[in-house]
Amino acid sequence: MTSTIYQHGTLGLLVPGLFTGTITAAELLQHGDTGIGTLEGLNGEVIILDGHAYQAREDGAIREIAATEKLPFASVHFEDDTATTPLTNLTQAAFEQQLLTEHQLQNVFAGVRIDGTFTHIKTRVAPKQVQPYPTLVEATAKQPEFVGDNVTGTIIGYYAPQLFQGATVGGFHLHFLSTDHQLGGHLLGFEIDHADLKLQSFADFQVHLPIDNADYRQTQFDNQTIDSAINTAER
Amino acid sequence: MTSTIYQHGTLGLLVPGLFTGTITAAELLQHGDTGIGTLEGLNGEVIILDGHAYQAREDGAIREIAATEKLPFASVHFEDDTATTPLTNLTQAAFEQQLLTEHQLQNVFAGVRIDGTFTHIKTRVAPKQVQPYPTLVEATAKQPEFVGDNVTGTIIGYYAPQLFQGATVGGFHLHFLSTDHQLGGHLLGFEIDHADLKLQSFADFQVHLPIDNADYRQTQFDNQTIDSAINTAER
Repeated sequence: MTSTIYQHGTLGLLVPGLFTGTITAAELLQHGDTGIGTLEGLNGEVIILDGHAYQAREDGAIREIAATEKLPFASVHFEDDTATTPLTNLTQAAFEQQLLTEHQLQNVFAGVRIDGTFTHIKTRVAPKQVQPYPTLVEATAKQPEFVGDNVTGTIIGYYAPQLFQGATVGGFHLHFLSTDHQLGGHLLGFEIDHADLKLQSFADFQVHLPIDNADYRQTQFDNQTIDSAINTAER
Repeated sequence: MTSTIYQHGTLGLLVPGLFTGTITAAELLQHGDTGIGTLEGLNGEVIILDGHAYQAREDGAIREIAATEKLPFASVHFEDDTATTPLTNLTQAAFEQQLLTEHQLQNVFAGVRIDGTFTHIKTRVAPKQVQPYPTLVEATAKQPEFVGDNVTGTIIGYYAPQLFQGATVGGFHLHFLSTDHQLGGHLLGFEIDHADLKLQSFADFQVHLPIDNADYRQTQFDNQTIDSAINTAER
């Protein structure tokens, strides 16, 4: 099923603070070997590569996630054998512009993987929250940031059509993991030295909702609040 | 796969007038035996029951759709063996309120099927458009309406969380087909005499996008316009 992005939960459910994990890492990995997410309690940033799920923690450490750990939100897919494209000396803005225009991505879900060396990387990591959970905007108001120059590693994430803002992040949503596992997190900025791009388009977007979770069932969501919170917390 | 709603296209793509069919009825029926939709050119209202797809036409006629006919938008699912609940003497408003509160549906995708006798039914049918296609709001500004009293038939459709407004219709989206195939269409109003409700909850919502369609790829969508057009055209 390389034509499908599988998403557990919605970005929207994180907005009022539904940070309880509702899928195990083992279950999630049945739906994809590659992707991004967060752990229960909004505990850091999850990066899934080649069937292994890693957590970038707020203290800067990177560790592999155990099969039984739970996530409130994650998106995964199975990598296909799409050919890679070389990229050289490219800013983030130029890269995103190139993807949108050359590949006409605006209304398409796509997986973005960039393996290579980056002249600059800047990430942030959501800090672990405890119950009663705050809202997403409150939880992410202060986040540790991490930077690196001439870092070798992998950018992984998605482009989603703006129509799906709320269900997910409309536009680009990228995470990073360095090859030496010394730097990772939600990607705030990057500049490519030389790298290989693997761009995978998906005809299908499958959202799996935690419909057996009482808090999810009971929460009153508001689309405007969700839209604005995503633009604040996920950019 | 009775836990999944499969949707081809988005309600959003109909808004600027992308009415070209991008899936055949035969392909669609591989993903469900029950559902709703519209045909190429916004040509009427589609009702899918027990593996057969019907078109309610603007002239009031009902016909079965051929396997090769194409649709720009449709939602289908496979019926499970959920028990039915009897309903008696219920207005539409009371029915919808009952569903939302008793079944706590607000954040859940659900299939709604009501077989029975209705004291009153009111439908409308979108009129067939020709290229260059107008917008959804223009196309549906004038629509024939049909009414019936003491009609036996089936209401079929969905409840979707408001977060997914745009991708689909947030809230209820119901069509109707009378048992004698003399009355059908997009349901504007109904009152239940006595009927059986089959309510099927879905953990998964799968959207299949027409990513090989050039018009779809090129169109600039706007979420505000889509939201307001759905509220105008689909209520």
